[in-house]
Amino acid sequence: MFRESHARSVAKAVSWRILGSLTTAALVLLVTRKLVLSLAVGGAEFVAKIGLFWLHERVWDRVGFGKRQVEPAVIWLTGLYGSGKSTIADRLAERLEKRGLRVERLDGDTVRDLFPDTGFTRPEREEHIRRVGFLASKLEQNGVFVVASFISPYQASRDFVRGLCRSFLEVHVNTPLEECERRDRKGLYARARRGEIPHFTGISDPYEPPSRPELAIDTRETSPEAAVEQMLGYLRRSQPGL
Amino acid sequence: MFRESHARSVAKAVSWRILGSLTTAALVLLVTRKLVLSLAVGGAEFVAKIGLFWLHERVWDRVGFGKRQVEPAVIWLTGLYGSGKSTIADRLAERLEKRGLRVERLDGDTVRDLFPDTGFTRPEREEHIRRVGFLASKLEQNGVFVVASFISPYQASRDFVRGLCRSFLEVHVNTPLEECERRDRKGLYARARRGEIPHFTGISDPYEPPSRPELAIDTRETSPEAAVEQMLGYLRRSQPGL
Repeated sequence: MFRESHARSVAKAVSWRILGSLTTAALVLLVTRKLVLSLAVGGAEFVAKIGLFWLHERVWDRVGFGKRQVEPAVIWLTGLYGSGKSTIADRLAERLEKRGLRVERLDGDTVRDLFPDTGFTRPEREEHIRRVGFLASKLEQNGVFVVASFISPYQASRDFVRGLCRSFLEVHVNTPLEECERRDRKGLYARARRGEIPHFTGISDPYEPPSRPELAIDTRETSPEAAVEQMLGYLRRSQPGL
Repeated sequence: MFRESHARSVAKAVSWRILGSLTTAALVLLVTRKLVLSLAVGGAEFVAKIGLFWLHERVWDRVGFGKRQVEPAVIWLTGLYGSGKSTIADRLAERLEKRGLRVERLDGDTVRDLFPDTGFTRPEREEHIRRVGFLASKLEQNGVFVVASFISPYQASRDFVRGLCRSFLEVHVNTPLEECERRDRKGLYARARRGEIPHFTGISDPYEPPSRPELAIDTRETSPEAAVEQMLGYLRRSQPGL
């Protein structure tokens, strides 16, 4: 909940007063054609109303009417390791933040850093994604945009998250496996192929592509900027002002 | 993020205009002693400035200065089953909501309903509480008060949560075991004593009381209302306006 500080109310009173008293003086001059009189009325008004305006602001600060909440959404990027999810998600989060919106950026790597015991078996991954989805939905319910990038390979857990959220935008970053492998500087795919990393999505663990994602983005053809524009375009369908 | 609707800006313009133009007319009357003239200036001003005020409001809506965020907190109630955590937590959440604050109420039972596979062994409980704490901290970071009631029997996981949060208020609802058992209508304690429920805190599983809770409440002596007052009093130490 935003409250207005006293300094803000005073600043608004002053800026309004300059506008207002100039108008008053001009009006009095127009009606009476007397410059001194018009300046006297304008000057008296300037002093009298600055306090009155401040009081008026303080009263309205207590009134909730018309304080509009922007409806947030959960933007969920799913795709293989190295598909480009995090890059796109970072840019989108930046853009939303620049618009003065509350944004939480959730990333598979950073969340797992906090919960190092979370494994990569199917039940562990499903539970992990459901938990993250619950977090996302609670943030959304409280007015926060969530930009989440998780491999999230299973349809069932993504659908569970969708069910929890009000406005869920599933974005499939569907860069093909070959391209993801080509980009992989850490050599994780190579290690997975040698059998050194078990449960590696795309190699030793399945990836279930979304059946009906709101958006699908192939990063071979679409730049991060263009991908962000696509996502913003989708969000603007329900919120033109975004 | 709150934005002001156009209706709010118009309503403020009208309410201010009535105040303002009456003052202007009075001032002109005072200076000129001419009633008709003063009404003419007041009337002209009324029309001219209503649009100007609206414009002024729209410009200020884009300015962030002085839009103050109330600093939220995580209020964490820990204690035995039947100690009275949920009742107190519900009342506190209601009180905070009435003050126009964003509040999320998290309760052990309702969260476990969503994650039915979560067990009651020590590692499972620890992980569960850490996950819930992560959720609480993210909500807090985004301006939401969190009122959480969980048995949360282990010091380590409560400390983990404390470490994640900015403003953490650990409330030990320390109603003694005998009293909790006496109140237990579902007969869970009796079943636990017969060995029918494993890992039951206080009977077959330990409860580690907080070493330095911000507050300790014994519900034999303290009513839920008084408990809420104690918690609000604590929160007001850092935020007198609450």
